[in-house]
Amino acid sequence: MSCSNSIVKTFFCLFLWCCFSFTSSAQEEYKDPKNKDPKEVFAGGSFYEVQKYPQTKPNKTPKNIILMIGDGMGLAQVYSGLTANGGHLNLENFKNIGFSKTSSSDQYVTDSAAGATALSTGVKTYNGAIGVDPNKKPVVHILERAEKKGLTTGLVSTSAITHATPASFIAHVDSRKSFDDIALDFISNDIDVFIGGGKKYFEKRKDGKNLSQELKDKGYQVLYNIEDIQNVKSGKLAGLTAEDHNKPMPDRGEMLVPATQTALKLLSQNKKGFFLMVEGSQIDFAAHKNDTPGVVLEMLDFDKAIGAALAFAASNKETLIIVTADHETGGMTLLDGDYKTGKVVAKYTSLGHSGIAVPIFAFGPGSEEFTGFMENTEIAEKMMQLLKLK
Amino acid sequence: MSCSNSIVKTFFCLFLWCCFSFTSSAQEEYKDPKNKDPKEVFAGGSFYEVQKYPQTKPNKTPKNIILMIGDGMGLAQVYSGLTANGGHLNLENFKNIGFSKTSSSDQYVTDSAAGATALSTGVKTYNGAIGVDPNKKPVVHILERAEKKGLTTGLVSTSAITHATPASFIAHVDSRKSFDDIALDFISNDIDVFIGGGKKYFEKRKDGKNLSQELKDKGYQVLYNIEDIQNVKSGKLAGLTAEDHNKPMPDRGEMLVPATQTALKLLSQNKKGFFLMVEGSQIDFAAHKNDTPGVVLEMLDFDKAIGAALAFAASNKETLIIVTADHETGGMTLLDGDYKTGKVVAKYTSLGHSGIAVPIFAFGPGSEEFTGFMENTEIAEKMMQLLKLK
Repeated sequence: MSCSNSIVKTFFCLFLWCCFSFTSSAQEEYKDPKNKDPKEVFAGGSFYEVQKYPQTKPNKTPKNIILMIGDGMGLAQVYSGLTANGGHLNLENFKNIGFSKTSSSDQYVTDSAAGATALSTGVKTYNGAIGVDPNKKPVVHILERAEKKGLTTGLVSTSAITHATPASFIAHVDSRKSFDDIALDFISNDIDVFIGGGKKYFEKRKDGKNLSQELKDKGYQVLYNIEDIQNVKSGKLAGLTAEDHNKPMPDRGEMLVPATQTALKLLSQNKKGFFLMVEGSQIDFAAHKNDTPGVVLEMLDFDKAIGAALAFAASNKETLIIVTADHETGGMTLLDGDYKTGKVVAKYTSLGHSGIAVPIFAFGPGSEEFTGFMENTEIAEKMMQLLKLK
Repeated sequence: MSCSNSIVKTFFCLFLWCCFSFTSSAQEEYKDPKNKDPKEVFAGGSFYEVQKYPQTKPNKTPKNIILMIGDGMGLAQVYSGLTANGGHLNLENFKNIGFSKTSSSDQYVTDSAAGATALSTGVKTYNGAIGVDPNKKPVVHILERAEKKGLTTGLVSTSAITHATPASFIAHVDSRKSFDDIALDFISNDIDVFIGGGKKYFEKRKDGKNLSQELKDKGYQVLYNIEDIQNVKSGKLAGLTAEDHNKPMPDRGEMLVPATQTALKLLSQNKKGFFLMVEGSQIDFAAHKNDTPGVVLEMLDFDKAIGAALAFAASNKETLIIVTADHETGGMTLLDGDYKTGKVVAKYTSLGHSGIAVPIFAFGPGSEEFTGFMENTEIAEKMMQLLKLK
């Protein structure tokens, strides 16, 4: 996506939301002289309902794990969404809460590659590393371990499926930029379901290979739009819904929720259990642009996917959901807001990532393991122990 | 304290800490162009040890509650302290974690008066209100309820004891600025122990009264320095350790820890239980100045008091500790850091408060009630229910 294209979309998104119940300018309201020019003003108004789910009893072990990563989702991003949705989120169903220390092996402030590799392998590595340790040696990740034990596995992402976060759960490359190499690992691996963008890394490759054909030869249904993907009833599925990243919200429309529901439908047909990673990728993209409407829209889209996962887990009763982030993006702060109108006034201190701990929210059997402060690598270790993969 | 005085102290504090193992300039290290000029650079190096305490079994009810309020202590303030102390805090002993929604009755961004009144009464009120509802009618607070039931009660603060947060636990006035009126409520009330600054509101009053003499007449030991205060073995105690606020750290020296320990020693002599509120007041003061060394020093001082409370609760076994904040101050973000040297690089978006939810940390019997998102008023309601005060 070109830069000018991205600016046009940001303004279009801002315009759309201003059509809702925009009440008053926060610039006029806020008294603090340093805050006269907050970066963005956002007004929502159309709230979705949040359902309440009963808590599970402690000391049970899960058969399935859904790991949901809000890329760049610090507490400010969560709370901007909560404010914009009238004071409530599906995330409020989570009662076991911790904080993840996100530093990588070489930096206080991690990137998504090192952050996701920590979550997938339990090993701290350098920024930019995908499934390899600081010496660039491959580390076995939870997806591979799960497959080896007969669990079904899946990845869902609103970015290209070859982007740093999902890539870190399936690939082993020394640079996050090696998208063509990352796509190869989807072939060598035995993943059951993956849905995201990144079609060009499978079909318009420098080496001339057509990986989608190879996937079909291996028995995958390869589909390109979310309507077709939703209709899949069983079997292996490769959903490539965009050439590169999917569009940002609101242009993307309903993609993450049906993709999550489809992955759950297919993976849960296995009696031995499953591991699914779902990423709300573009919270990070919007925060990198210090684009508050974008952060809020992506946060709410991700929270709706959390709602879909909760609905599944509440009826399944053997599923642990962990919602966390790889890092915070933007140094986002909330200077004003209004639960009645959904107004959010945010100000940022960075175009990059920040070093603050990110929340961990856990629901379901085993969720009591994810309370208190912990290193991001401990999340991987605990998941592997709970699924008896290590 | 005059403004120029405060600036001198800020620089003195910065100088002091630079004498420790200051490693390298974060300005040189940080790549993001927007972050070339982070507000402050802080280097620690002298870490204190953090002890681990065993978790209590759930579903027990507490006899005693220690409510610890870090004024202005958002997650960024907590994490700046954790980074500066080499990656660890006493707070890490807390496994039951929630988030407090801090908005007041009239504003998304609360002040300390409305914030503390919510925590002391369970009622949302307007910014500036001390123990009164939006109609300026007095609301019974937890301290009064506790006294009525025969519990001993105490307040400890590094600010003047008449300042908004401690005041909201004992007084009923329509403006937080009415310090002389607030001091009167320490006489009309039956509090057992209070330690903080604010001597002048007891002894140099516009109405000419000498409230310290009145306190002595009521049987209080009235003492003015922390060494004398520590030596008190039993009875009622009024500790007035400064004319107005106590000095900021590091000039204040060890005051909050011995004050907390003394209050616990005196209050725990009552078989019916106690309620104690301890405030780390000046995290807020430093954050209002966007003074990172100040935030870190005050955060670590507060965390040491949390350590003292944990040591008491671990041996007492009937004590619930709740650590939370009234609001976040400064829109603080963490752009860089180093656990090895204790370096913290923070940047701020405000000289005032922000609207982000603040963490709630709970330890001991009843702590499982304080998980998940909740309104700040629910914290008061839950405390009153656990102590059977309502």
